[in-house]
Amino acid sequence: MTDPESSRSCAIGLLTADYFDNVESFVEGAIDNGHDFVVTPIVHPRYSRVLKKGENDNWRNSPVYDRGDLVVRKPTWSDAIVGALSNWLDLDSSDQNTRINSELALRQELAWACHLGLFAVMTPTLSDATTTLFNLARVINHNVGSMVVTQMWVRVLLDDNNQAWKKWNQFRSLTEHNSKIHVALELPKQLPEGNLLLDAWIAEPIKAVIVPADIFISNNKGYPVLPKEHQAFVKKLMHRMQPQIIVTLPETQLHNSATPSSYQEYIRYLNRNLPEMDDVDHFAAGYHDYLQAPLQPLMDNLDNSMYETFERDPIKYQQYEKAVYHALLDRVEHGSDYISTIMVVGAGRGPLVNCCLRAAEKAERKVHLYALEKNPNAFVTLQNAKAEIWHDKVTLVFADMRKWKPETKCDILVSELLGSFGDNELSPECLDGAQKFLKEDGISIPASYTAYVAPLASSKLYNEVAAYKDLVHFETPYVVMFQQVFELAKSKPVWTFVHPNKAFKEEEEPENNSHNTRYSQTQFQIADQDMIMHGIAGYFESVLYKDVMISIHPDTHSPGMFSWFPIFFPLRTPVQVPRGSTVTLDFWRATDTKKVWFEWSAAVESSNGSDTSISPIHNPSGRSYWVGL
Amino acid sequence: MTDPESSRSCAIGLLTADYFDNVESFVEGAIDNGHDFVVTPIVHPRYSRVLKKGENDNWRNSPVYDRGDLVVRKPTWSDAIVGALSNWLDLDSSDQNTRINSELALRQELAWACHLGLFAVMTPTLSDATTTLFNLARVINHNVGSMVVTQMWVRVLLDDNNQAWKKWNQFRSLTEHNSKIHVALELPKQLPEGNLLLDAWIAEPIKAVIVPADIFISNNKGYPVLPKEHQAFVKKLMHRMQPQIIVTLPETQLHNSATPSSYQEYIRYLNRNLPEMDDVDHFAAGYHDYLQAPLQPLMDNLDNSMYETFERDPIKYQQYEKAVYHALLDRVEHGSDYISTIMVVGAGRGPLVNCCLRAAEKAERKVHLYALEKNPNAFVTLQNAKAEIWHDKVTLVFADMRKWKPETKCDILVSELLGSFGDNELSPECLDGAQKFLKEDGISIPASYTAYVAPLASSKLYNEVAAYKDLVHFETPYVVMFQQVFELAKSKPVWTFVHPNKAFKEEEEPENNSHNTRYSQTQFQIADQDMIMHGIAGYFESVLYKDVMISIHPDTHSPGMFSWFPIFFPLRTPVQVPRGSTVTLDFWRATDTKKVWFEWSAAVESSNGSDTSISPIHNPSGRSYWVGL
Repeated sequence: MTDPESSRSCAIGLLTADYFDNVESFVEGAIDNGHDFVVTPIVHPRYSRVLKKGENDNWRNSPVYDRGDLVVRKPTWSDAIVGALSNWLDLDSSDQNTRINSELALRQELAWACHLGLFAVMTPTLSDATTTLFNLARVINHNVGSMVVTQMWVRVLLDDNNQAWKKWNQFRSLTEHNSKIHVALELPKQLPEGNLLLDAWIAEPIKAVIVPADIFISNNKGYPVLPKEHQAFVKKLMHRMQPQIIVTLPETQLHNSATPSSYQEYIRYLNRNLPEMDDVDHFAAGYHDYLQAPLQPLMDNLDNSMYETFERDPIKYQQYEKAVYHALLDRVEHGSDYISTIMVVGAGRGPLVNCCLRAAEKAERKVHLYALEKNPNAFVTLQNAKAEIWHDKVTLVFADMRKWKPETKCDILVSELLGSFGDNELSPECLDGAQKFLKEDGISIPASYTAYVAPLASSKLYNEVAAYKDLVHFETPYVVMFQQVFELAKSKPVWTFVHPNKAFKEEEEPENNSHNTRYSQTQFQIADQDMIMHGIAGYFESVLYKDVMISIHPDTHSPGMFSWFPIFFPLRTPVQVPRGSTVTLDFWRATDTKKVWFEWSAAVESSNGSDTSISPIHNPSGRSYWVGL
Repeated sequence: MTDPESSRSCAIGLLTADYFDNVESFVEGAIDNGHDFVVTPIVHPRYSRVLKKGENDNWRNSPVYDRGDLVVRKPTWSDAIVGALSNWLDLDSSDQNTRINSELALRQELAWACHLGLFAVMTPTLSDATTTLFNLARVINHNVGSMVVTQMWVRVLLDDNNQAWKKWNQFRSLTEHNSKIHVALELPKQLPEGNLLLDAWIAEPIKAVIVPADIFISNNKGYPVLPKEHQAFVKKLMHRMQPQIIVTLPETQLHNSATPSSYQEYIRYLNRNLPEMDDVDHFAAGYHDYLQAPLQPLMDNLDNSMYETFERDPIKYQQYEKAVYHALLDRVEHGSDYISTIMVVGAGRGPLVNCCLRAAEKAERKVHLYALEKNPNAFVTLQNAKAEIWHDKVTLVFADMRKWKPETKCDILVSELLGSFGDNELSPECLDGAQKFLKEDGISIPASYTAYVAPLASSKLYNEVAAYKDLVHFETPYVVMFQQVFELAKSKPVWTFVHPNKAFKEEEEPENNSHNTRYSQTQFQIADQDMIMHGIAGYFESVLYKDVMISIHPDTHSPGMFSWFPIFFPLRTPVQVPRGSTVTLDFWRATDTKKVWFEWSAAVESSNGSDTSISPIHNPSGRSYWVGL
């Protein structure tokens, strides 16, 4: 995990389209002017003569440059140079000879860039909506296989009709989301209206952002600055993906006071003035888009450091305290001698016990607490707390809440068993067992929780899962701090669990666990923009007591709470989502006597009623992922 | 390989919706009336009471039938019974309780059917366009995993607006083309107009066809017969997939002379009177939809039995003889003493040598032949033929045509190096080498060949490939005799090779093989019907000489020629193809110094310009499949 602050630094490059005779002095000049690297052609356009080579030409057998064909002739400064690939290459020409020679010349150019050890190469702009790029995609895909040091950037000019994204989407779909291929996104003078077109790019593998000089405006001192919308978008990109930024120098003086340093200085200024990181940012840094396997809380015991982390949450325990406080106020009259019994089930190292004691004190109500815990290691910490702080106010019980038979019943049952999807750490099954401790009119905190889902795009997360190269990882949900993601539509609720479950007539829950199965089909209307879906975002919202809530749902997220990251359900194959289509997500919570698991599927129906994608049901019968009971 | 004739026999069942008290006597009656099996409910609808069971009900823990709940109570006749699953089950009910109990009751019913050893069970009809079937699909998918003997049939009522296919398509996509789930296709009174809607079903895994009594009409003797269109479709199904046929008996007498045997008798009559199998059918029987890895003709030597098989083709050598005959007529005046030199390159066991000698005799032209062969085993057979038949008329050369240096040049170069896709057995590379034997104005037979492709649906072929459970098999083309397939659109040409290649100035071909690379993007307009694509069909057409052709392209197939089956390029993920969309297929023939391979991709664009699917480029850099040089 890197230092969160330093990870926000930003390398700045200078792009030129000129073919310098002495590129070394251009690089030195650019670096003297405060740039970290340059983007320059590496081959001179005079080499385009090779496009005419025929079948019998020896060039095809062994292409070789004369040094005069080259702009970058030696490895000096190679780690400060991004090579702009020749724009006269025409890989998708309808002329076979041109196409073959373009492929050979591109291969030669890439080999030269790799030989020099340039840190990246960049394609010409994918922008023309009509030209096909299938052969270019194939050839680049072929060649990146042998590129180890040198990165491949595909240059894309952001436009206002989504054509640029569509072109890039074709490119990366053909190349199977090849993780060696990145985007260099060029900003236009006029940013498209509507956030969707911009936000969709956050889910793409952007390595560099090109900010040409002519989109800068002059401030009142004549220095170049970015218009407000550009500022906001560049800052969002800096915050989410720390791209390299590439500037250009205008051919004529566009901004009165500008020097060759001004553009990079302004970018550095923007980067320095990103919003301060808050507690959640600090906590989350290093976890961004990092896949964590979900906990197996019933089968594994948490270790001390995890308790420590979770207990640091500044918001969660405030909310629990507030919930218990209001429950006590509602349940017992002021001045009453009644001693309310509160059972904390899954007490861990005791934070909820402390919440309850603080709430009782503040409410001026008498309470006696039971703290139930099944983890023998945490139980020692509870014993320490009892001996040193709680004394008689708390009774400790070492037991699994699904099996303990209490002598007395409680007024309030408090638990913190929720996972990122609400029920995914088996809170429903645990509380089924524990609700027999609760009086007929007793209160469960939490009172309910609801799972939410939304269709999600994220090249990053898709590639993280795909890197495992197996089915199991595509059928496992992950806890992830989302960063380079894009929600295709607002999330919607899938199901809710309510406690206590009044449907039980007996004290004991049924042997079978059918009542805890769930199924939900949710539909999402897609806006007028083509998109891609890589998986499904999951969240939860929980009513602790009446209007006291905790939530990790984006619209209602409890500010400052960091105990839960969202959950990500991958899809095995990326799904194209046409504009105006309807995405249908099906989710199942399934169970047998030994385990609980989720299954999910995604289908897309076009605006005229055709099914354009229907995924298989993922994780059928829990074959890849399950949580043990 | 089974006996082709016997594989066309057909089992006939009798379907009832009644709940018989004594189902055994019903089965006996049906069999007495000439049926092979019956389709009957196995559970009585009175058992639908369990839909009301609640969370606390012990039934959920251990569902058990009273014998009075059952129609089929014992395993007598179990191998002659298909169980019609209860139609009151409501797996996709919006009521959670109904849904849960339906799932449990379905599992119970399937377990009972498997316990009895019924040979199949059949779902109620998937027909209602509005009802969702996602949960039904999930539960069936889950349960077929443990069904070993008993088959699962999904009943579908063929309709005229493609809704039935769409429902089935959702079902099988959700269940990932599970090869244990089959279709029982029920024919309607009125068959849909237009062949596409019917032909699309040929690509589906149909195990049974239901032909209800009320679609029969009376012939002039009052016996039930099928209308013409139904006859044709049933015969096509019988011919392509040998389904079981299921009939019903009408509740009232619909056809004056009909007895309970008449319906099955008519079906047997149809089956007996399928068109006679021709030579190609006989040759192909046993190869239907069977995946063969393509040959590696340069790396491996053919064995004697393969030569034997190929030489049996009645058409191919006729066409070669005709081509040589016309070439000789065109090239040499009648009565001339000129001795034309003909070189047969890749002579194998000599069939083309015989063709040339026959052609020369018929044309009354003098010839001398060279027979070139690199396979030492075939070369012995050539020596036998020379010693016994050809004598001085033929000179034998043991050499690889890419390396032999002849002392003389020929007038006509004859080869048979074509594969199912034309160039896929490296005819272009071989003839590049051999054309140096040819005089400046000499003739190559074949003169050219063109590869064709078409988008193809076939559940069968998809599952055959998927069964290997690896990437390599999804990136390999197969030679296949198509049977249960559906072409989404007419095939189109992708590229052509012409011989001799006049572009060479030298006698030698270039060291690099770039001139034999090809790239083609082909687009297909899809009709007004939703479809699915599992891969790409490939064919070739070859001009041997002037208007003498051979072709395996469906529109121009040389009648009776069986030497080549089509080629099938799979797609890794089945692709939904919406009505009115455009399918784009990209094909590459790529090369390096040691091998040749194909790459391919498929993309679908909806009628309003959105990309709905973009496959990755398959077999990039020949990673999974190649042909060695």
